[in-house]
Amino acid sequence: MTGKVFGLGLGPGDPELVTVKVVRLINTAPVIAYPRTQHGESFVREIAKPYVPSSAIELPLDTPMAIDTAVAQAKYDEHAELIAAHLDAGRDVALLCEGDPFLFGSFMYLYDRLADRYEVEVVPGVSSITACAAAAGLPLCSREDILTVLPGTLPEEVLERELTQTSSAVIMKVGRHLPKIRRVIEKLGCTGGATYVERALNPGQRVVPLARLTDEVAPYFSVILVFRDTD
Amino acid sequence: MTGKVFGLGLGPGDPELVTVKVVRLINTAPVIAYPRTQHGESFVREIAKPYVPSSAIELPLDTPMAIDTAVAQAKYDEHAELIAAHLDAGRDVALLCEGDPFLFGSFMYLYDRLADRYEVEVVPGVSSITACAAAAGLPLCSREDILTVLPGTLPEEVLERELTQTSSAVIMKVGRHLPKIRRVIEKLGCTGGATYVERALNPGQRVVPLARLTDEVAPYFSVILVFRDTD
Repeated sequence: MTGKVFGLGLGPGDPELVTVKVVRLINTAPVIAYPRTQHGESFVREIAKPYVPSSAIELPLDTPMAIDTAVAQAKYDEHAELIAAHLDAGRDVALLCEGDPFLFGSFMYLYDRLADRYEVEVVPGVSSITACAAAAGLPLCSREDILTVLPGTLPEEVLERELTQTSSAVIMKVGRHLPKIRRVIEKLGCTGGATYVERALNPGQRVVPLARLTDEVAPYFSVILVFRDTD
Repeated sequence: MTGKVFGLGLGPGDPELVTVKVVRLINTAPVIAYPRTQHGESFVREIAKPYVPSSAIELPLDTPMAIDTAVAQAKYDEHAELIAAHLDAGRDVALLCEGDPFLFGSFMYLYDRLADRYEVEVVPGVSSITACAAAAGLPLCSREDILTVLPGTLPEEVLERELTQTSSAVIMKVGRHLPKIRRVIEKLGCTGGATYVERALNPGQRVVPLARLTDEVAPYFSVILVFRDTD
């Protein structure tokens, strides 16, 4: 019997924001795989800490930073084969993902390589989109509102076009793109409706109105919520 | 001591997709409030069923269908006062919400009425956005993709404009708007990238390519995922 892959969404960081289903699957999976930085750190393994049994085989996957290179693609090929070896031996593999597996995660690169050969079940998690809204105490959308999720890495003119047309926007991966994003928001005159959220629902959480934020750079896991009065 | 309001996101329907934190808060809240239809049914109360202790005071809130009327607004005023009475008596109130409290839910109307007078903590849940993607086995977005969340109730020309500009769209509240939505998607020539998802991760789940869907109407809790090749 071939094993099955579980792509598990572990949510924004608080181990209590993991679902009952994910807790059960982490508890029972014979193999637990997760991305790890080149410095040997794994945020998602930290989230899972209270739930990983000591009997599990752990499979840390050293994840490349730049994904567009041939080197990075070869790395994902290699990770897929490491997982496949366990599946072929009949062992299920739980693959831990920050947030939700299908929303801006590196899980996609492994899913592309495994889903046509093996059974894969994706278990959704609490995404950073709603975690940031909860942290800021700001409702995202209701009734006929449009919600746009934008990577902060987009070119300035694309961000401007998108922000012009939406009632609510979540700008993710702010990081070093903060000055560019701030420029666009100021140009559109909606700084008053913008809130910066860093480490939502995690230790060290910061929620600051963009108008009062003096930082020039932000951590990668930071988000800006923008609400425009489109009535 | 005044009580505290917990706005709890219970996810898309499977009791196992409730977070550990929400389970704990439902287990310990002295008062559990939830919306109920005029027929006395409550989907979110069903999700919470395994976790509600018999000792809890239950506060079902008969929720109006049309929200724009003065009658509906008066109803929300009344619900807020029912909750406030418990808070004033020192009892915490857990308010159960389908999906995520801040994403297209009726929680917003109570939040608006309570947040300036009482302490409110919102606990995010798994949203139907990522639940539908998981059900369909379709990654929502990666890298520089834009994700647009659109209520299917929007006018045809707005849907068309939004779908023209995004790489990934989740069209919610499909229901009786299915023919209109289908028309827009066909006009844009992206029917091949559209998938209909009904009752995601719930009993009776249906995942059907839009090109093969013959239904003329859909339940309210149905979604269409649209992916466009914008490379």
